[in-house]
Amino acid sequence: MSARLETPADYESLLAKYDTWMFDCDGVLWHGDRLIDGAVEVLSLLRSRQKKVLFVTNNATKSRKSYKGKFDQLGVEAHVDEIYGSAYAAAVYISSVIKLPKDKKVYVIGMKGMEEELRDEGVSFIGGTDPADCTTAPFSLDTFTPDPAVGAVLCGLDTAVTYTKLSKAFQYLTRADPTNPASPKNLETCAFLATNEDSTYPAGAGLLPGAGAVSAPLRYALGRDPVAIGKPNGQMLDCIRAKVPFDPARTIMIGDRLNTDILFGQNGGLGDVVGANWYYHRIRPHWSQLLPPSFPDYVTASIGDLRVVASE
Amino acid sequence: MSARLETPADYESLLAKYDTWMFDCDGVLWHGDRLIDGAVEVLSLLRSRQKKVLFVTNNATKSRKSYKGKFDQLGVEAHVDEIYGSAYAAAVYISSVIKLPKDKKVYVIGMKGMEEELRDEGVSFIGGTDPADCTTAPFSLDTFTPDPAVGAVLCGLDTAVTYTKLSKAFQYLTRADPTNPASPKNLETCAFLATNEDSTYPAGAGLLPGAGAVSAPLRYALGRDPVAIGKPNGQMLDCIRAKVPFDPARTIMIGDRLNTDILFGQNGGLGDVVGANWYYHRIRPHWSQLLPPSFPDYVTASIGDLRVVASE
Repeated sequence: MSARLETPADYESLLAKYDTWMFDCDGVLWHGDRLIDGAVEVLSLLRSRQKKVLFVTNNATKSRKSYKGKFDQLGVEAHVDEIYGSAYAAAVYISSVIKLPKDKKVYVIGMKGMEEELRDEGVSFIGGTDPADCTTAPFSLDTFTPDPAVGAVLCGLDTAVTYTKLSKAFQYLTRADPTNPASPKNLETCAFLATNEDSTYPAGAGLLPGAGAVSAPLRYALGRDPVAIGKPNGQMLDCIRAKVPFDPARTIMIGDRLNTDILFGQNGGLGDVVGANWYYHRIRPHWSQLLPPSFPDYVTASIGDLRVVASE
Repeated sequence: MSARLETPADYESLLAKYDTWMFDCDGVLWHGDRLIDGAVEVLSLLRSRQKKVLFVTNNATKSRKSYKGKFDQLGVEAHVDEIYGSAYAAAVYISSVIKLPKDKKVYVIGMKGMEEELRDEGVSFIGGTDPADCTTAPFSLDTFTPDPAVGAVLCGLDTAVTYTKLSKAFQYLTRADPTNPASPKNLETCAFLATNEDSTYPAGAGLLPGAGAVSAPLRYALGRDPVAIGKPNGQMLDCIRAKVPFDPARTIMIGDRLNTDILFGQNGGLGDVVGANWYYHRIRPHWSQLLPPSFPDYVTASIGDLRVVASE
């Protein structure tokens, strides 16, 4: 069972115990364009106590630079090198872990932010925001000439996802040349990657289908799962570790989702994990699909409750 | 193990045993716009022997009337009342089984053929080919006014599927009014239906993501499965039974997919099931995802092989 965080003493003990505070953003600091009450004061409190603050988000629609703009717009202090997004982590994974050769390309199902991160990491790509792929016009294999340089498909949240993008990605992940049944299967030669597998994401007034829903057609058609980079998987933490030194035992993760944030903290061996906006989330439909079951060490109604420390 | 159909005697014994011959179309009679060698002759042979011929397809992009046009174009004799498509079966299911009240509507992820079948059955609908939904422009809950009359979401193959359609369907399947968290959940009041769950479909030169891939984002975001109408499920056979008398024990099903056609014949208690184009399909990637395992009674390299009877 998780312990409830309620009194100033509860929060003060966590402040003493942890140097590095990792925060999920959507659903913890804000919902859509609405800041969560107290979030700014809590981050100021942490900075005033010389805590290291990191923002760890599965949002792959924005690059770190444009995500910084979201913090600015909402009046939340943040620095680009404190922000770790799954698009950035995916770009680093492609360039540094699978080491995609420079003459190879990524076929992208994703948005501008993902393209920016790939470009910054020197990874070539096609698809994405290309108007030729962002179309609801019929897709035909007869007029499709696959690019033989494609060596990976990267899928993230894409609100301009189309059947054309899904069909092209499917082709790259099955046959090098779909018009030639004798061409080699790409199952081993083309990597299938996803920034993250969130089923939904909080969008202001409610929930919308998440990155995991956008890659779901490919999973279903291929009968296999992508390598997912974002929370709860270790690639994201490896990416942070490569850039910022931190002691996992003195690091705390605050998030709102069991199957991403909480599991991420537990998989990564972080000191404690806190479920924020917990009472709100407990009634949500996506709670029925939590797999594997995991529980935070502490729960709190809202991250803003940490203000009780400051007000004492 | 399945027996191979190879000699004239093999085929002659089936001709003697079965009065009603049910055929899958895509992958059995044709691939995309390419007729399978011998298909016309085989159907003529069956008609000359006074066999009842039925075409049972999961293709939901065409109405029976427009599907008839495909037969005509390829020079295959067929009559509208011999054609059973999953869009037609879904429309019948909505009007006759769940009996959606006349003042309720269906939110459609699907194409013109599905709309035609719904219209013919007197079922009101929104979405589908509406240009307002076939757009890659950003979708926002802030500007979305849900239609309170929507009582079902029907999802089929839609090559103009968009994030807008998926988001609207997701809203209808979760909350009646997404802007009001206190509004009733639609989980029980809005039916979640799919014409079929095929992972892929044969499209001329290769495979493309199928109807099951189009509904996969909703399954994933909702964490639940739709009621699927098409093969292998019983709704399709119930729909045929309501229109055409046939004796299951004297009925044979010929198809190319284990998890749709073959399972459909077995679930429906039909006499025998024949796997057509079998040697071709055995090397295909989707064979790895077959669930539950089922095997045809007989297999043949191509339905055209049945010509050996006529040529004797």
